[in-house]
Amino acid sequence: MSTNLIILAAGQGTRMNSDLPKVLHPVAGAPLLVHAMKSGAALAPERTVVVAGVGADAVAAAAQAFDDTAQVVIQSEQLGTGHAVLCAREALKGASGDVIVLYGDTPFIRPETLERMAEARARHDVVVLGFEPADPGRYGRLVMQGEMLERIVEYKDASDEERTITLCNSGVIAASADTLFDLLDAVSNDNASREYYLTDIVAIARDRGLSASAVTCDEAETMGVNSRDQLARAEAAFQARARAEALENGITLTAPETVFFAHDTVIGRDTVIEPNVIFGPDVTVESGARIRAFSHLEGCHVSRGAVVGPYARLRPGAELSENVHVGNFVEIKNATLAEGAKANHLSYLGDASIGAGTNIGAGTITCNYDGVMKHRTEIGARAFIGSNTMLVAPVRVGDDAMTGSGTVVTRDVPDAALAVGRAEQVNKPGLARKLFEMLKSKKAKRDKEAG
Amino acid sequence: MSTNLIILAAGQGTRMNSDLPKVLHPVAGAPLLVHAMKSGAALAPERTVVVAGVGADAVAAAAQAFDDTAQVVIQSEQLGTGHAVLCAREALKGASGDVIVLYGDTPFIRPETLERMAEARARHDVVVLGFEPADPGRYGRLVMQGEMLERIVEYKDASDEERTITLCNSGVIAASADTLFDLLDAVSNDNASREYYLTDIVAIARDRGLSASAVTCDEAETMGVNSRDQLARAEAAFQARARAEALENGITLTAPETVFFAHDTVIGRDTVIEPNVIFGPDVTVESGARIRAFSHLEGCHVSRGAVVGPYARLRPGAELSENVHVGNFVEIKNATLAEGAKANHLSYLGDASIGAGTNIGAGTITCNYDGVMKHRTEIGARAFIGSNTMLVAPVRVGDDAMTGSGTVVTRDVPDAALAVGRAEQVNKPGLARKLFEMLKSKKAKRDKEAG
Amino acid sequence: MSTNLIILAAGQGTRMNSDLPKVLHPVAGAPLLVHAMKSGAALAPERTVVVAGVGADAVAAAAQAFDDTAQVVIQSEQLGTGHAVLCAREALKGASGDVIVLYGDTPFIRPETLERMAEARARHDVVVLGFEPADPGRYGRLVMQGEMLERIVEYKDASDEERTITLCNSGVIAASADTLFDLLDAVSNDNASREYYLTDIVAIARDRGLSASAVTCDEAETMGVNSRDQLARAEAAFQARARAEALENGITLTAPETVFFAHDTVIGRDTVIEPNVIFGPDVTVESGARIRAFSHLEGCHVSRGAVVGPYARLRPGAELSENVHVGNFVEIKNATLAEGAKANHLSYLGDASIGAGTNIGAGTITCNYDGVMKHRTEIGARAFIGSNTMLVAPVRVGDDAMTGSGTVVTRDVPDAALAVGRAEQVNKPGLARKLFEMLKSKKAKRDKEAG
Repeated sequence: MSTNLIILAAGQGTRMNSDLPKVLHPVAGAPLLVHAMKSGAALAPERTVVVAGVGADAVAAAAQAFDDTAQVVIQSEQLGTGHAVLCAREALKGASGDVIVLYGDTPFIRPETLERMAEARARHDVVVLGFEPADPGRYGRLVMQGEMLERIVEYKDASDEERTITLCNSGVIAASADTLFDLLDAVSNDNASREYYLTDIVAIARDRGLSASAVTCDEAETMGVNSRDQLARAEAAFQARARAEALENGITLTAPETVFFAHDTVIGRDTVIEPNVIFGPDVTVESGARIRAFSHLEGCHVSRGAVVGPYARLRPGAELSENVHVGNFVEIKNATLAEGAKANHLSYLGDASIGAGTNIGAGTITCNYDGVMKHRTEIGARAFIGSNTMLVAPVRVGDDAMTGSGTVVTRDVPDAALAVGRAEQVNKPGLARKLFEMLKSKKAKRDKEAG
Repeated sequence: MSTNLIILAAGQGTRMNSDLPKVLHPVAGAPLLVHAMKSGAALAPERTVVVAGVGADAVAAAAQAFDDTAQVVIQSEQLGTGHAVLCAREALKGASGDVIVLYGDTPFIRPETLERMAEARARHDVVVLGFEPADPGRYGRLVMQGEMLERIVEYKDASDEERTITLCNSGVIAASADTLFDLLDAVSNDNASREYYLTDIVAIARDRGLSASAVTCDEAETMGVNSRDQLARAEAAFQARARAEALENGITLTAPETVFFAHDTVIGRDTVIEPNVIFGPDVTVESGARIRAFSHLEGCHVSRGAVVGPYARLRPGAELSENVHVGNFVEIKNATLAEGAKANHLSYLGDASIGAGTNIGAGTITCNYDGVMKHRTEIGARAFIGSNTMLVAPVRVGDDAMTGSGTVVTRDVPDAALAVGRAEQVNKPGLARKLFEMLKSKKAKRDKEAG
Repeated sequence: MSTNLIILAAGQGTRMNSDLPKVLHPVAGAPLLVHAMKSGAALAPERTVVVAGVGADAVAAAAQAFDDTAQVVIQSEQLGTGHAVLCAREALKGASGDVIVLYGDTPFIRPETLERMAEARARHDVVVLGFEPADPGRYGRLVMQGEMLERIVEYKDASDEERTITLCNSGVIAASADTLFDLLDAVSNDNASREYYLTDIVAIARDRGLSASAVTCDEAETMGVNSRDQLARAEAAFQARARAEALENGITLTAPETVFFAHDTVIGRDTVIEPNVIFGPDVTVESGARIRAFSHLEGCHVSRGAVVGPYARLRPGAELSENVHVGNFVEIKNATLAEGAKANHLSYLGDASIGAGTNIGAGTITCNYDGVMKHRTEIGARAFIGSNTMLVAPVRVGDDAMTGSGTVVTRDVPDAALAVGRAEQVNKPGLARKLFEMLKSKKAKRDKEAG
């Protein structure tokens, strides 16, 4: 049976104390909303509808950046979760099969959990995701009768006996599209908050003789984000899992608590990651690489045997082939380094390709920006770029070529040629001493004048 | 009623195992002593007297750096807290009103707590600050009779019954100046340590028919520092509170445990602070800025929308206007960057002003030091400083001006002018290959000679 | 009595999920194997035999790098710990005295513990190291009768009563060489695993009327490493101890949990270590130095009063004399800096010696590599190296000499001389404006063509 997703992402998130809509705050380099969409994507949904409200344009942009087929509908007034889901009705007109309702501020529901809900739907008209928290506190409770879910009761409306129930409501719910919207038509806002509650559909379904049941998951999956503190805790929870998985996969993390992964980081076995390494989105590292301390990687690929850092920054488009070395205080952006190339000190390589076995001297800079446009630098194989070479792009340095230290390369350098541009060194005997003396007496005079 | 402070700061701090006087060890970028003075400053004290002993000159300098009206008196022998307070008598001669005695190694007493003590003084002659620790252990106990404090008993002198008391003595005490010194005159050193204990004044006051009472505070406020381990714990306690407050104030800390604030850091709402960021003293960051990973800020101001880092170092006097970008491996010292200016790679800008919209190329250095004096560099608006430009200060680059990559700028560049100083690039065909071969044969020869 | 060591280091370490032999995975910068060898080295062993198997060549290399007298024998089949020890018999032929059997994956046995075992050997023929874990779980149990150890029983073979024993087997065992091998000859592999267990020698010894006993140690000492997670935990345990010791020794660690020591780091009293500092192997720091945040040190020496960082990288062979300053984005390798020398910004000093009081300008690079060989740079005392000076080694700059900013120094600079090599700056009025306009119209055209 096909599935559709409704993701509720309209809330203000007042407690976030932010101009950014709550669901756009990131965890592990991706907005909360994208985490929810990624969970749901595992079901290969036919349609995905994001219900936006506060900051709807930005929410829509984020949703469609992740999935350009996602539809975004606007809930202009915040009249409750039931009302929010109804906002998606039009967008799901004609959609076959099921709907699962997810929450844009609840990033960690596992795909496997949603699959179990989809399976349970084969046996029940309405399926709710429940969990057994360490402290049930003020969560809504799932009132079960054997396998059958009778109703969901809010804590404040629950009897003392109902409050002893430990199975709590996550809010995630599945039903056929037709059933869902039919039931929602019957939900009223006849309550203290004057809101339409999605959860009310369970009791209505049971009244109509439909079946309802619950699937359970770990409390960790239902973690929601309502404040910066909870955002930080969600990040920490993500990182703890990602680090444990990395160790499990045969990666060495010298100090796991100091390594930060993104939601999509892929690292190969026997790679060593030293302390204080940060992975932004879209990084893959092959087996047997070494990421040294204080390195920062985003949008890049590191091949087998490569060594990165310490203090290396790989920015989007950095592609390091096997056994490449990128050393300290080196920034690589949108640049490929072929096998065995080395850039070990104080360099900026942007919009460039570097050939195999080439050595980039300390202080080398690709002058890729002319103030208006960006240009490319191409360096061949086995070249030797002298320290402090400026490569004024667009420019090409050939295979086996060499540049003299301090050269500003403005024209192409042929294969095997030496390019040099350097004012001759002149030694002026005794002049340093004279200069020092002059400067000191100047300073003495200035100090005297200053009083 | 006016208040005066006595801050006891004479102790050796043997367990610190340090040549630095204990009260000068820093927490959150300020000496312990300054934390105590800051707490007391909330009462707008008429006079502040610091009782110094070990390392008195350094202690005096630190005290007066924070408050140049602070008086420093010397306790040349360590004869107990009572004796220490008496050392301040002369300095307080003629002072009206109250005295509160604080401790230079106890940094976290909250101003509100001192205000409550001041209020309690309206009703009692002597007011002592007590706390209820998780483990009362060997603390002195406050023996209460209803609201009235009867005496303070040292643990070692306490009866079994008194040891069951959970209200403990912080040492912080308030009384009128006259009462305090009168009572201290009656304190004897007739005890095992041959010391004069400040705490003895309570029993003496009660004997004389004066009233005494206690105000209580959190145990966390009374945390004292006697060893490097406790210093590290005090730092951790400070940071935990500062991080929680930052989150509460609507700041995103991706990994709060990796961010270190100073005692006076001010950050605006909706600023994002990535992992591994360190704030030294005197930093303000406006709303909506982004401080990227591995950044280090001291004595600087970052405006709305600015992006700092990763790997950026802002030193004292760095002033970043709105939407300024300071990128990786860039150091800014005593320099202003006007709106929208960018310095994204491998640069040092010291003693400089950079105009709005100006782009500083990678590898740019302000040569601000001639070996004797520092000089300023001024760069206008919308300028384009080519990569690896050396700006030999004092020098001015005009609005809309440009410098060629690799230029050493020693003379002013007029508005809209291009400054270039560059030896022409010469390509020597085949010479790189020859050089490589020559070097290789040289090396082979050398290796052979070496055996 | 003399002692010999057998270190079992043949295991595959399947759970490590690694191509690297388990015992070569590092903790605190040294392979696990070396930690075990260091523990044993405290007994000044006559012979040390490492029993290698998986990855024997690499294991042998690591063992002999630490102790070039260590013998390495090969256990080609994994037939149990008893068999592994027997593999060392030949290598110990003729050795007098005792043998202690250690494990290459158990890095934290304290030398004092081994000394206590050696002492206990004076009273007993066989001595086993036991420990009382918080959770005895499935460890083998030591069955004692008073002071006498009767036998070691594997958990799976233990009776219910034996399972209540809390004294567990660490596997570390001591006996005379003769006794050890005699007893091992009697061990059979008549068990479920078809392995020869070293632990079986205890019961055999007792059967023969020999005495056996146990020495106990902390559970922390017996921590073994079988997975990357346990490797990370071992690292964390090491670091926790090292940090506590540093604090105890009068070193300030602002944030102890962010400082990583190596197994052999030596730091002097009153040195301050800021957050996020990493020590690789072979670092000594004298008293009263300051290691600022984000610094990385390996194989270097830092003298009294020196300041390192923030963002400084000291590589092997960096020797900093008193009051040297090495600042941000500076890399030092195989270079000495004499008293008071300063290199504060964006520099690479490799294979160099820098004289006392010399100032290295920002962007200075020693061009120590010509593509084939490394060469040395020598700079005298009180010299002033201008910003962005390239020092093309081999080259010497004299005392009191000066280099102009941007100079490529290819020839020696005499004492007190000024070396300068610089194309003259030419200002081209209005040309910057024209260039900007040209570039913008070019871009507009390109954008138009691109559609």
